[in-house]
Amino acid sequence: MTAADDNDEPAAPSGGGGLVRLRLDLGYDGTEFSGWARQPGLRTVEETLARAVATALRLPDVPQLTVAGRTDAGVHATGQVAHVDVPEVAELDRLPRKLAGLLPADVVVRRVTVAAPGFDARFSASGRRYRYRVTDLPPDPLRRRDTVGWPRPLDAPAMDEAAAGLVGEHDFAAYCRPREGATTVRTLRSLRVEREPDGVVVATVEADAFCHNQVRAMMGALLAVGEGRRPTPWPGEVLRAGKRDSAVSVAPPHGLTLVHVDYPPADELAAQAAKTRRIRRAPPPD
Amino acid sequence: MTAADDNDEPAAPSGGGGLVRLRLDLGYDGTEFSGWARQPGLRTVEETLARAVATALRLPDVPQLTVAGRTDAGVHATGQVAHVDVPEVAELDRLPRKLAGLLPADVVVRRVTVAAPGFDARFSASGRRYRYRVTDLPPDPLRRRDTVGWPRPLDAPAMDEAAAGLVGEHDFAAYCRPREGATTVRTLRSLRVEREPDGVVVATVEADAFCHNQVRAMMGALLAVGEGRRPTPWPGEVLRAGKRDSAVSVAPPHGLTLVHVDYPPADELAAQAAKTRRIRRAPPPD
Repeated sequence: MTAADDNDEPAAPSGGGGLVRLRLDLGYDGTEFSGWARQPGLRTVEETLARAVATALRLPDVPQLTVAGRTDAGVHATGQVAHVDVPEVAELDRLPRKLAGLLPADVVVRRVTVAAPGFDARFSASGRRYRYRVTDLPPDPLRRRDTVGWPRPLDAPAMDEAAAGLVGEHDFAAYCRPREGATTVRTLRSLRVEREPDGVVVATVEADAFCHNQVRAMMGALLAVGEGRRPTPWPGEVLRAGKRDSAVSVAPPHGLTLVHVDYPPADELAAQAAKTRRIRRAPPPD
Repeated sequence: MTAADDNDEPAAPSGGGGLVRLRLDLGYDGTEFSGWARQPGLRTVEETLARAVATALRLPDVPQLTVAGRTDAGVHATGQVAHVDVPEVAELDRLPRKLAGLLPADVVVRRVTVAAPGFDARFSASGRRYRYRVTDLPPDPLRRRDTVGWPRPLDAPAMDEAAAGLVGEHDFAAYCRPREGATTVRTLRSLRVEREPDGVVVATVEADAFCHNQVRAMMGALLAVGEGRRPTPWPGEVLRAGKRDSAVSVAPPHGLTLVHVDYPPADELAAQAAKTRRIRRAPPPD
């Protein structure tokens, strides 16, 4: 469906075939986008950005973009990373300003750099960090786009305790939409839930990668604990049961923001990409 | 023009004349409002809120509201305070939820309480705190509504140093639109400028009260220092010159948020209101 699904195709090496691979560091307000991935007739971040890149670089065709985290409709990003292979670029340092003039106010390209050899925005990534914001207090209208209002009181310490039961390397099939031939084993490095000084409950979660809807499904389970509908051990029990549980509802998208993508040092980029491809036989949509 | 101008009229005491004075703690995203104060044919916070109160309490007429800080078009609030005098209210604790059902997503009433005797949202206030957000980096699209993008690099420590020259009790005529009979003397308790970890430059300013446009005019002077167009002592020199300086441009409204209003303890409310009325002969629009 999207370029990122074609993980059997070898990535064009930076500078190979007369092409330069550019790394784009970007952010967006997902409210008015139908997610990252191109869909005919819909406004998507991928299409919006790819068209701006084509115009800025006077490319004959709209280029393919590869992204670290293919966010769903309504999900935001502050630390998204993408790459694009383009013919030799003159005046790279002027590109962010050119793009700023072409892009709408809800997408920003923070930085454009020539990617290190072996870099692949998706497969070289060694970690992704997401944030989820939810409030059981009257919400701040200025943050209503990235904060979910919750109609019942939330017990943040109980959510944090429940979250600990999900951390580690596990088969997250219970929190993933199954895809044939794709592993649902992931390493959840951390998942913390805290109430911030302004009262907003913020979950921060980090893993090597996430499968589709995984963060929002885990948040759904933690919110059930937070409002006292389920006991604290329940999210961990669902995990160990190993299959999708209809009692877990997927939390709303607009509380979710991709805040950071980790890459290994330059000399390990190609090895990381090879390892990722080997582990995930079929395309994991993260 | 607005109710808040009528400061010679005695305030209706809480519970007096069969009326109850309610204190409303509220916030709003000012982006799509033409400011706080009612203006015929325009969408204002005052009108929107007053109509919701009338509907929630089934009042025959839209009530007058009095507010601590009459914000301009595009200015936001997280800690605004207003009062309204209404007939005896049944089930006060259900009122915030009722109002939430009536108000649009860009206004929230966080709390409704019966005001202490002598309370006046405007004249009892002993302090107001505003925040101004500006960034010289590619802006976060999720914060574009309350953060001004600045096209040139800013020296935040220089702005902070310049800010120190404005603190204290002064005649702020240089930073105020003059109004006949109104004093422009204010006590600026603090004004700090810091670059936050995410790179956004945030100014926080606190005073007993501000005159119209004062925060944005002071920010305009500090931004001139920040981008190196003026030396650090310049904002203080403008202050001491004592008259409006055409070289000071008023900074854009959407970086500004009223974050807090201070009131003295309950037993000093009436005394504070009397003092404020005495000091400010003519209506200071703050």
